[in-house]
Amino acid sequence: MIINVRTSQGQQFIEITEQVKKFVAQEGLQDGAVVVYVPHTTAGVTINENGDPAVVRDILHAVNKLIPVHGDYTHLEGNSHAHIKASLFGSSCTILVENGHLQLGTWQGIYFCEFDGPRNRKVFLKALR
Amino acid sequence: MIINVRTSQGQQFIEITEQVKKFVAQEGLQDGAVVVYVPHTTAGVTINENGDPAVVRDILHAVNKLIPVHGDYTHLEGNSHAHIKASLFGSSCTILVENGHLQLGTWQGIYFCEFDGPRNRKVFLKALR
Amino acid sequence: MIINVRTSQGQQFIEITEQVKKFVAQEGLQDGAVVVYVPHTTAGVTINENGDPAVVRDILHAVNKLIPVHGDYTHLEGNSHAHIKASLFGSSCTILVENGHLQLGTWQGIYFCEFDGPRNRKVFLKALR
Repeated sequence: MIINVRTSQGQQFIEITEQVKKFVAQEGLQDGAVVVYVPHTTAGVTINENGDPAVVRDILHAVNKLIPVHGDYTHLEGNSHAHIKASLFGSSCTILVENGHLQLGTWQGIYFCEFDGPRNRKVFLKALR
Repeated sequence: MIINVRTSQGQQFIEITEQVKKFVAQEGLQDGAVVVYVPHTTAGVTINENGDPAVVRDILHAVNKLIPVHGDYTHLEGNSHAHIKASLFGSSCTILVENGHLQLGTWQGIYFCEFDGPRNRKVFLKALR
Repeated sequence: MIINVRTSQGQQFIEITEQVKKFVAQEGLQDGAVVVYVPHTTAGVTINENGDPAVVRDILHAVNKLIPVHGDYTHLEGNSHAHIKASLFGSSCTILVENGHLQLGTWQGIYFCEFDGPRNRKVFLKALR
């Protein structure tokens, strides 16, 4: 299945947990895992706290201090920082499923990580049994 | 299956390779993969050298220079550094299984990564065939 | 299946996308996922742009500014920087397969990440259905 994500900022985490839960229900997946895959090279996916939005803000702020938007990069498109972040966060997450339910921890949400927006993005989902 | 991990320090890597091997044997998994999943947002999981304990010490030391415990974070709980580390290390590892054996390299061990301890933690394991 | 990779530099990304595509064809995998697993503790695997080689160069350059080859490390073998990078990039990638094709994005390539070469390395591949 493909989820469409419309980002509105240069860098932004957008929660997609509900879409992944719906996918598990639609697939009738009882026991196995879901792979959430991002087919982009300037975006990623991560799992982190969805209680206090300050957490996601702090993650982006800290990562931008380490890997600034403007630096001594050679890639002419000017978005090397986003490629670097994509590799550090990773292009997929695997979440377990038992008794038809995603086995996320109490505070865990699944976030699409935009590093070079705003753009129209895609996320691929697949059930492994 | 759930592994219980009791951490004793603020930041600490605890090897769980033996528990994962036992799980593979108990499941009778001959061919496939094991997903090791951490349902926490201030902890992670990684695979690295289990020969010299200095390796794990150096990893934690270097990561703390990049993402210090105290910084200009806004999350009031005061553990933003741990959330950031959790996303950079990741919430799961996938290890292959062939002929009933985990296909780890000679020096590879599986480590639970505590970034906001001490706490009682859980790790989920699942076999994919 | 095992891919052999011969690296020629201390730090180097080597694209292995074609070998993974061949593996999918040989396995006759129509629908599922491929896990690309690196059994080394000073190397990793990542997915990033394979259009402009400057991207990979910028990734390595930026990561070496954050985690320098020589630092205040205690591991006597002198390659702690490579172990740290291995954990940040990760030891595996999971890529989806549909209708017999790897579901990579337009610009995505799969890269073996050497952080302590030159060496003869191995990459394990496995199909999950």
